[in-house]
Amino acid sequence: MTRFSDIAAFEAALSALPVADTAARSAATARQSRLTKPPGSLGRLEDIAVFIAGWHGVERPRIERGRAVVFAGNHGVAARGVSAFPAAVTVQMVANFTAGGAAINALADSAGLTLAVVPLDLDRPTADFTRGPAMSEDECLAALNAGAAAVGDADLLVLGEMGIANSTAAAALCAASFGGTGADWVGPGTGVDANGVARKVETVDAALARHAKHLRGAFEILRRVGGREIAAIAGAIVAARHAEVPVILDGFIGTSAIAPLARDAPAITEHCLAGHCSAEPGHRRLLERLRLRPLLALDMRLGEGSGAALAAHIVRAALATHDGMATFAEAGVSGG
Amino acid sequence: MTRFSDIAAFEAALSALPVADTAARSAATARQSRLTKPPGSLGRLEDIAVFIAGWHGVERPRIERGRAVVFAGNHGVAARGVSAFPAAVTVQMVANFTAGGAAINALADSAGLTLAVVPLDLDRPTADFTRGPAMSEDECLAALNAGAAAVGDADLLVLGEMGIANSTAAAALCAASFGGTGADWVGPGTGVDANGVARKVETVDAALARHAKHLRGAFEILRRVGGREIAAIAGAIVAARHAEVPVILDGFIGTSAIAPLARDAPAITEHCLAGHCSAEPGHRRLLERLRLRPLLALDMRLGEGSGAALAAHIVRAALATHDGMATFAEAGVSGG
Repeated sequence: MTRFSDIAAFEAALSALPVADTAARSAATARQSRLTKPPGSLGRLEDIAVFIAGWHGVERPRIERGRAVVFAGNHGVAARGVSAFPAAVTVQMVANFTAGGAAINALADSAGLTLAVVPLDLDRPTADFTRGPAMSEDECLAALNAGAAAVGDADLLVLGEMGIANSTAAAALCAASFGGTGADWVGPGTGVDANGVARKVETVDAALARHAKHLRGAFEILRRVGGREIAAIAGAIVAARHAEVPVILDGFIGTSAIAPLARDAPAITEHCLAGHCSAEPGHRRLLERLRLRPLLALDMRLGEGSGAALAAHIVRAALATHDGMATFAEAGVSGG
Repeated sequence: MTRFSDIAAFEAALSALPVADTAARSAATARQSRLTKPPGSLGRLEDIAVFIAGWHGVERPRIERGRAVVFAGNHGVAARGVSAFPAAVTVQMVANFTAGGAAINALADSAGLTLAVVPLDLDRPTADFTRGPAMSEDECLAALNAGAAAVGDADLLVLGEMGIANSTAAAALCAASFGGTGADWVGPGTGVDANGVARKVETVDAALARHAKHLRGAFEILRRVGGREIAAIAGAIVAARHAEVPVILDGFIGTSAIAPLARDAPAITEHCLAGHCSAEPGHRRLLERLRLRPLLALDMRLGEGSGAALAAHIVRAALATHDGMATFAEAGVSGG
């Protein structure tokens, strides 16, 4: 299991990314061409089957230990009026996850995924990142390692988050990673009004000005303008890559975790599927920048891993066709 | 169970469509507002839950008898070189469905749907509709009734088709129902080349010219330029409406069955979800004309009900959240 002993170890892990098994990909591609359907007619389901085959290293992969993880964190910038909900909702929702009453519980269960909930120091919000770094180096490293530890023995990983005010941190991460200002990346999140959006924009712009000279590298970006749950997702993404576990990314906030990683190592997206495109405007822009094409677009904007868990149904269905269909020869159908 | 004793009975059924239960819709909408999530944040999943509630007539609906049906038919126009596959493939694929080896078998199973296969006189292709009506009145009525009979006791219905050359019939149905020429509605189908597309366009245009004076009403359009499997889907759609069973439409051909119905009775789409938008270019145009917004867009172009069966996962997930989530009050979360 991957553990980042220090910042250098994290940076080394990000700079030495394993690649997919080309032999397994080729075998899966060849199998697709023999199945009883016109070539390519299952569209992206065929791509998904080949993608999972490449990361599992087998021609006919199965998902037997699909796992959703929800990381939760609290944010100093919540005090700046950037969310429609009070900060206390983070811990209340963690209790709801644990009791089984949240959307991600229903969606993970529906998609046959186990659900792990990882609260990260909820009684210690990150610092207000308009005034200084959100986290110390040790705090950020601990969050990355909490993410890495959550990979476990999963063979498909859905990564979700909960954290009042974290769409502001996500916008700051996108701007710090790929350029632009608060106005380019901020949206209504869980539902703030125009004044709330303006406060979010101001907060992001203040953070960019405060940290401008220090946003050099994934770790520093995550530490300065991220949050614990977002850094945990980043750590899980890197650790999953080293374990060759395919990942489904969720919405704007979940996907923002990969932005600083992709800035330094664009190939980090290769083991990731974009589960959906959320209604948050920055998400579409972020996915385009990452060259990730979302599987779903159902106007969802909840987080928790909800869109990614829903997309796990599509992955399962893709593997069901790949593994379960007869070949032209087996079925005695003309045209193979 | 709906049965159309004659053409007039079919027309009467189409002109007296039941509507959704508004009390159940209101109750489901109110429940959505109490669940532990920001209002509207589950996007189209919320709409789906309310939609199913309205047709099932209960606040918290469940899918317990989800059913996929694949109707198969053969087409006289297959002899005109409009398909990449020989006509013999229709009966071969029916055998493949029965043996469990096709994509729809894997996808129906994956979505928890039972699968019924309904071959329709495969040894008697429809007539070449460039020369006369595809079907006699009795033949078309029999196909409509075969569709109606397939509704059974389903509480969710996925309607699929198989029939070599039937994307040409689908294009003719769209043009006959909504205007335009062959070029407006024809595409590559299962994969014909440019010459094949040209032959399809010529075939559709010849059919439109041949039947121009007689394309007045859903039954005549289905009979003259449709096919048995397409008429069966039309019959199933109308019968499902009278049984208040929600329907998931599949791709271009499956959706073309509703075109002549919607021409006469636009409200026929109200109990239907568009499962996906296929890669066949006419499908997007058709969905826009029907004002149906597809749930998925995954570049699929297989038919068989494959895209609709995949969308059934989304419906199940929508109901899982609607039924399974805690309310703000139940969970003790602020903000409800």
